[in-house]
Amino acid sequence: MTAPSQADKAEQFRALHTGPRILALPNAWDAISARIFEAAGFPAVGTTSAGLANVLGYPDGQYVPREEMLFMVRRIAQTVQVPVTADIEAGYGINSVAEVVETVKGVLAAGAVGINLEDSDGDVNGTLAEAGLQVEKIAALRALAQSEGVPLVINARTDAFHLASLDTQAKLALAVERANLYREAGADCLFVPFVNEASVIAQLAQAINGPLNILVAPGVPDTATLEKMGVARLSVGSGPKRATLGLVRRIAEELRDQGTYTSLTEGTIPYPEINRLLAPRE
Amino acid sequence: MTAPSQADKAEQFRALHTGPRILALPNAWDAISARIFEAAGFPAVGTTSAGLANVLGYPDGQYVPREEMLFMVRRIAQTVQVPVTADIEAGYGINSVAEVVETVKGVLAAGAVGINLEDSDGDVNGTLAEAGLQVEKIAALRALAQSEGVPLVINARTDAFHLASLDTQAKLALAVERANLYREAGADCLFVPFVNEASVIAQLAQAINGPLNILVAPGVPDTATLEKMGVARLSVGSGPKRATLGLVRRIAEELRDQGTYTSLTEGTIPYPEINRLLAPRE
Repeated sequence: MTAPSQADKAEQFRALHTGPRILALPNAWDAISARIFEAAGFPAVGTTSAGLANVLGYPDGQYVPREEMLFMVRRIAQTVQVPVTADIEAGYGINSVAEVVETVKGVLAAGAVGINLEDSDGDVNGTLAEAGLQVEKIAALRALAQSEGVPLVINARTDAFHLASLDTQAKLALAVERANLYREAGADCLFVPFVNEASVIAQLAQAINGPLNILVAPGVPDTATLEKMGVARLSVGSGPKRATLGLVRRIAEELRDQGTYTSLTEGTIPYPEINRLLAPRE
Repeated sequence: MTAPSQADKAEQFRALHTGPRILALPNAWDAISARIFEAAGFPAVGTTSAGLANVLGYPDGQYVPREEMLFMVRRIAQTVQVPVTADIEAGYGINSVAEVVETVKGVLAAGAVGINLEDSDGDVNGTLAEAGLQVEKIAALRALAQSEGVPLVINARTDAFHLASLDTQAKLALAVERANLYREAGADCLFVPFVNEASVIAQLAQAINGPLNILVAPGVPDTATLEKMGVARLSVGSGPKRATLGLVRRIAEELRDQGTYTSLTEGTIPYPEINRLLAPRE
């Protein structure tokens, strides 16, 4: 059996958005976390922009240089066989279609088959990118995918719920409006993060004309409940990476204060097992 | 106050080997783990070759290309202000002084001030590199450090205890012989991993004519006990990274089997706190 082509992987990933089951998508920050998610049986993995930036010493928010981000995406995509989708924040071009296209060319060259594209630069007090410009970016990526022969899965994110100036109803209305515009422009999935109330999630699922992606946050219902509401995809974001960093701090504090090693020796994956997980495959 | 020069950092790191206190050295695998160890108050951080390789999708054992390893060392050294020492396995040159020198030039250029250099290529059934060759490498690195103006801290590792063919007494004798040769050749610290019995550690500390570095493993006494025995430095190796990978697996299993998020939301470091840890410093 030959390995699936990148185009096959993209189609395989897209199909996971339209089945009866919710797609729970774990977000990896390095190659071994991606490999562990794959080994646990997840049919695809995403990257977390925050986690990946942190690995390289940068805060979240496009501080990680594009080439360094792409290097990590490449290492992840070369380590797992399941489809990989890359969180590219605003694509290194909140105001530039050309820069976003350049970034996504790099993502495809790195071996990934999907992207998350945001319509804000993460500024909680800011505004969203102009709707027409965002639509133009998505259409340009659809055209890029066509010309590259890889049916890229575009997850278009709207940060309507990140705008501190709006109340919930206004956020909801804006999110639906943006999501439906992005869908018409060629997005495969619509990502509305920073929502945790079940009733609001249900309204989004009903009003958005395409697969809806929700982000894990305190209060978000379990995957079975989300599935019943019609949510198509669930991202875990930077949570798992930040959970591991909490453990790193507990390990550091134990070593510093007690001079002992319990938290660094318990619950580990043994060294030979990790080497086996990463051994070159046939 | 200006930032210390690389040469100052090397001296500062060397001094930590000769004080009355044991140097507990946490081993980082990415920039944020290094930053968390620094923020916890550790005066220096090492890298773990296994953990760093795993981040990039490679098993341990020099599968990670030299340039990729150096890239990660650079990201770590640019993220923390404390001295960084790099685990370079056999220096990409188990049989070549020139290759080891080339690797260490790269380590210095990346901003680190110390290295671990092994005398085996990790093959448990193998033998150690010829003693004379290993001595030549260490002497060449001492000369390199002189010419580069950075008093590199050389941690010379002997894998005597990794040789399956020897009994404990033979391992002990070989480790002491190698360590003392390496010390004479210019090593600052002597690293004897894969020892956990207190009595054997005490014999090593007595018989080796220089600072002794021990690796955490099941059964290794706590840091206060090691300090009393005269151990100068303690490495944690890949344990912390593998502990975090155990948590990644538990997160994956919970998400897969229960569809819930407890293990990925409890005990995390909050997103804004991580961004603050990685914010550019004055």
